[in-house]
Amino acid sequence: MAPNVDRTGIEVLSFDECRELLATTHIGRVAFQSAGDIDILPVNYVMVGHVITIRTAIGEKLEAAIMNQPISFEIDHYDLASRTGWSVLAKGTGREAPDDDLERLERTGLEPWAGSEGRDRWVQVIPHELTGRRIRFDPDA
Amino acid sequence: MAPNVDRTGIEVLSFDECRELLATTHIGRVAFQSAGDIDILPVNYVMVGHVITIRTAIGEKLEAAIMNQPISFEIDHYDLASRTGWSVLAKGTGREAPDDDLERLERTGLEPWAGSEGRDRWVQVIPHELTGRRIRFDPDA
Repeated sequence: MAPNVDRTGIEVLSFDECRELLATTHIGRVAFQSAGDIDILPVNYVMVGHVITIRTAIGEKLEAAIMNQPISFEIDHYDLASRTGWSVLAKGTGREAPDDDLERLERTGLEPWAGSEGRDRWVQVIPHELTGRRIRFDPDA
Repeated sequence: MAPNVDRTGIEVLSFDECRELLATTHIGRVAFQSAGDIDILPVNYVMVGHVITIRTAIGEKLEAAIMNQPISFEIDHYDLASRTGWSVLAKGTGREAPDDDLERLERTGLEPWAGSEGRDRWVQVIPHELTGRRIRFDPDA
C-alpha cells in the first residue's frame, strides 16, 4: 500500500505508526507558554495508555504554566547520512498524574531528564491530536 | 574551572557554549502558539550572526502564528549509553528574513526539513534569551 502523502509530498504517518513511535522512544520535548514566551524542555517519558507521562523537577511557575493549559509533546529522529527523518507531535493539555497511577509510575524507574526548581512531579500530556510525518531529503531537489 | 550549576546540580552552559552548539548543529525544533495549541516542528537551520534562520514551507496560518509572535527554538543531543545530554533553548520573536539576507541565505543550500502547505520562506528567530544545560544521569540517584 502506498504511504499517505500530503500535498507537498511529505509522508503522513498513521495514528498507529505515531503510537508505535511514541511507545519505543524514550526522550522527547514538551513545549508550553510561560510568562509570554514559549518554553521547550527535553524530557524522559513513558506512555500510560495514550497519555504521555513525564517525570520532571517542576517549579511553581512551570506548574502553573502546564496544568490544564495547552502543552505539546514532540519526538523526532533523523539520520543525516541517509537523509531521512520522522517526527511525531501530540497536542494536548497538561495535568498532574492521578494518584491511582503513581505506584505504577514509580515502578517504571523513569528519572527526570532535567529540571531546575526542585520538586519531582509526574506530569501528563493528555493528547487531543496526534500527527506524524516522515521525510526523505531529496539530494536532487 | 568548575562548571556553573543550578541549585539542583544541573550544569548551566555559558552563553558562548550555547552559541557554539547552535553553530555546529543542523537540526532543531521551533515551537509557537497556533490556534490555541502549541506547535512544535523540526527544522533545518543556519545561524546568521545571532539569528536562527530556518527554511520552511510555510502556510498562511503558520506565517500568522510566527511573524512578530513569540517563537522558541531548541536543539538537544543525548547519548543513552553514556547517560549524558545537553539542550539549548533560544526564546525570541519570529520574523521573515530581510531582503538583504536572501542572496546569502540562498547560497547556504539549506533545504526545508518539512512543511505542509507549499511556499518556501526564510523565517528567523530573533532571540532575546539563550540558555543551555548539560546533564549527566546518575545511575545511583
